[in-house]
Amino acid sequence: MSTNIIQGRLKSLGIELPSAGQPAASYVMAVTCGNTVFLSGHIAKHQGEPWVGKLGNDMDTTTGQAAARSIAIDLMATLQQHLGSLDKVKRIVKVMGLVNSTPEFTEQHLVLNGCSELLFEVFGEVGKHARSAFGVAQIPRGACVEIELIAEI
Amino acid sequence: MSTNIIQGRLKSLGIELPSAGQPAASYVMAVTCGNTVFLSGHIAKHQGEPWVGKLGNDMDTTTGQAAARSIAIDLMATLQQHLGSLDKVKRIVKVMGLVNSTPEFTEQHLVLNGCSELLFEVFGEVGKHARSAFGVAQIPRGACVEIELIAEI
Amino acid sequence: MSTNIIQGRLKSLGIELPSAGQPAASYVMAVTCGNTVFLSGHIAKHQGEPWVGKLGNDMDTTTGQAAARSIAIDLMATLQQHLGSLDKVKRIVKVMGLVNSTPEFTEQHLVLNGCSELLFEVFGEVGKHARSAFGVAQIPRGACVEIELIAEI
Repeated sequence: MSTNIIQGRLKSLGIELPSAGQPAASYVMAVTCGNTVFLSGHIAKHQGEPWVGKLGNDMDTTTGQAAARSIAIDLMATLQQHLGSLDKVKRIVKVMGLVNSTPEFTEQHLVLNGCSELLFEVFGEVGKHARSAFGVAQIPRGACVEIELIAEI
Repeated sequence: MSTNIIQGRLKSLGIELPSAGQPAASYVMAVTCGNTVFLSGHIAKHQGEPWVGKLGNDMDTTTGQAAARSIAIDLMATLQQHLGSLDKVKRIVKVMGLVNSTPEFTEQHLVLNGCSELLFEVFGEVGKHARSAFGVAQIPRGACVEIELIAEI
Repeated sequence: MSTNIIQGRLKSLGIELPSAGQPAASYVMAVTCGNTVFLSGHIAKHQGEPWVGKLGNDMDTTTGQAAARSIAIDLMATLQQHLGSLDKVKRIVKVMGLVNSTPEFTEQHLVLNGCSELLFEVFGEVGKHARSAFGVAQIPRGACVEIELIAEI
């Protein structure tokens, strides 16, 4: 029985999943298509509000990594609500990470490691994903990082 | 028989689909992979020409929403040409929307609602999709918005 | 037998695939999900180092096209290592291309043609893909172009 394996790992990491976010308009946070689950882009939040900042300006790489890690937790919360159990995840397939960046900031890949490393800690080899990271002009509500995810179930 | 259900809904909304756009180079507007259809990024057009503008500079959110809505119509035109009938759409799975933004503009999610709301009006629950929206430095030919779409058939 | 058809075409184009790139952190360069392969975003490289530049500032469209073409070669190298043989590719499904752009540069589609045209030369009709191209504020390590790819096997 694989029940609660991932929950156990989250617990040992001291992570409690928050309640999943709700979309603000005519879209949803997750859609299953065959064996593939597509999650909406999740923006970084801090105490329930958008985690505002621009890398290369008013936020450093270490803080960006913490924001990316917090999004990984929110993505797992959405997956859990959508699937019922994170043990149904066969593979984290793909992560796309957008970093709110000045035209000079070039460490988007290091920022995204905050997300990638937590997914690996929680899911193990199954958590190793393909990834794209890049710097964008802005993100809804001024958030510092936004990440979307594709998983196989 | 499900034939022409979606066409009927488009008609009741007063929407006539244009002829589908043509790619300008060695790519295509839509590819089916198993039961999943991937559409190319469609840029906003106005009277056949790129709908030029940058949100936060020379275009406001309301106009951006109109541009996003017009792209939803073009995406449906491409889907119809690719599939033969929009009734073959089982689910609108994912929308990714890029908004040509200044580094200060933070309402990309509101702009994208112009697309998301029309997809919901036309397809109903089947039209509710996962979504990412963000602000980019530029879009081909200076267009204000670009949207790509994944559908399940 | 389809063995080595694509290798033959690469040879006739004078292209030798490099060894595939390695990820720098807790992610991988390719993941197979069902019959679909998702490749990580590949940044442009020149002599093993990031190919640095910003279109509209210190790099012109022709050079950007050469960078996009070089990424197509790296993407094929990753696919070959992941699949064993490029003859397993049934279709190049989707390409997403990010161009490191000033807020004024609007020829991202022309830059991406450097990638799209080579995929067509190598794979023929099977190489014709859906595509999105847009301009981003920055790319990891300052690279001028980054491209990710989805293939059907």
